[in-house]
Amino acid sequence: MVEEEKSKENSHSIMKTYIQLSLCVICCLLFAELAAQDTTKIIFHAPENPERAKAPFSEAVQAGNLFFLAGQIGMDRTVGKLAEGGIQGETEQTIKNIEGVLQYHGLTLDNVVKCTVILSDINDFKAFNEVYVKHFTKKPARTTYAAAGLAAGAKIEIDVIAVK
Amino acid sequence: MVEEEKSKENSHSIMKTYIQLSLCVICCLLFAELAAQDTTKIIFHAPENPERAKAPFSEAVQAGNLFFLAGQIGMDRTVGKLAEGGIQGETEQTIKNIEGVLQYHGLTLDNVVKCTVILSDINDFKAFNEVYVKHFTKKPARTTYAAAGLAAGAKIEIDVIAVK
Amino acid sequence: MVEEEKSKENSHSIMKTYIQLSLCVICCLLFAELAAQDTTKIIFHAPENPERAKAPFSEAVQAGNLFFLAGQIGMDRTVGKLAEGGIQGETEQTIKNIEGVLQYHGLTLDNVVKCTVILSDINDFKAFNEVYVKHFTKKPARTTYAAAGLAAGAKIEIDVIAVK
Repeated sequence: MVEEEKSKENSHSIMKTYIQLSLCVICCLLFAELAAQDTTKIIFHAPENPERAKAPFSEAVQAGNLFFLAGQIGMDRTVGKLAEGGIQGETEQTIKNIEGVLQYHGLTLDNVVKCTVILSDINDFKAFNEVYVKHFTKKPARTTYAAAGLAAGAKIEIDVIAVK
Repeated sequence: MVEEEKSKENSHSIMKTYIQLSLCVICCLLFAELAAQDTTKIIFHAPENPERAKAPFSEAVQAGNLFFLAGQIGMDRTVGKLAEGGIQGETEQTIKNIEGVLQYHGLTLDNVVKCTVILSDINDFKAFNEVYVKHFTKKPARTTYAAAGLAAGAKIEIDVIAVK
Repeated sequence: MVEEEKSKENSHSIMKTYIQLSLCVICCLLFAELAAQDTTKIIFHAPENPERAKAPFSEAVQAGNLFFLAGQIGMDRTVGKLAEGGIQGETEQTIKNIEGVLQYHGLTLDNVVKCTVILSDINDFKAFNEVYVKHFTKKPARTTYAAAGLAAGAKIEIDVIAVK
């Protein structure tokens, strides 16, 4: 091979390398754009118990890694009544219900980032809190207040946002 | 070309390929980092109706693909009064107002992942729900309770989070 | 070099280029997948003031770029009492408390995308709003109502979601 030919081949090879790298960069940009996502996948999850599919809301709606749960009250689903034991009994049952929904989606109370606690009586605060702290040990952000009325005569309703 | 030269050229070519691939991987990592985003773009959307720009809140604030909407009551904006027809009339108007804001941002009620429904009277639950189920057919997660008071004497306020 | 050899080498080189580009595309897809994230990092932030670590909730929980803050009341932490000056004094203090938490995480009120304002009396709406508009100038989405009761006899509680 003569020197001239070799030099021509080298410059050709350098150009080829540049083209390849440019293509790579373009691919990367396209996929980065893809990853940034123009839309987030929303899943209105069906409930674990098909009987509850009549409810006018989903127990959990997933948007990407965020899970929005329907507010739960202390309804004991095995008997269809609010749990006994006053505010503490209802708080236990409410948290149990939340745990059930989370578990069905591979989550635990440790995935909860925000709790909104709605009491029917602000004087139940201390009693409710005694039960609460035993379960929400990761300490989600929390807002607590008393409403003028809750569904089904409940003493407490807890609404959570979880993140996987 | 002698054998020695050829072997040297081959090893050179393999090295070049490795360098190219390494560069690609570095590019990919950089763009993946970029896509993971250090900050999320926040847009405090101006309202469709410029007259409503005086309000102390945005009708919709967008953070990435999440849309946080201001709570809506059943105010009929064409007349500047709460809709007639009691709880059901106000519920229809409230949902219509939410739909209007969503539509302005290219969304529908099907993009709503979470509804917080605040009634002025928990006894309105059944009547409100009859109207609600006709519109929120995808079944967002929902929390409903009665407050001690709503702005403008409204019977219902609905606050939604939507995702595009 | 004979023509035949050259052509063979060229086709070899084209094949090599294809393999390289395919590898790049595979890398890109893998990293895009990585960037789309199977899980979001959750941080239950410890409070700035270690004394407040006893609280049953975190002042701020971070999930990716989203910050969920615990509801704040107008507690003046320097004296351990609700701020004086009625609804306006408490509103000032509440917003100051929120600002403190945000600041600790490198954020300001301008990062707030959603405010839920809970009053103890809906008649305080106008007075609270006069203070509010001076601070939340970016206009987060907002929902305001009166509860039947707030913790510690507060006149106002504000719960915010911020985005970095």
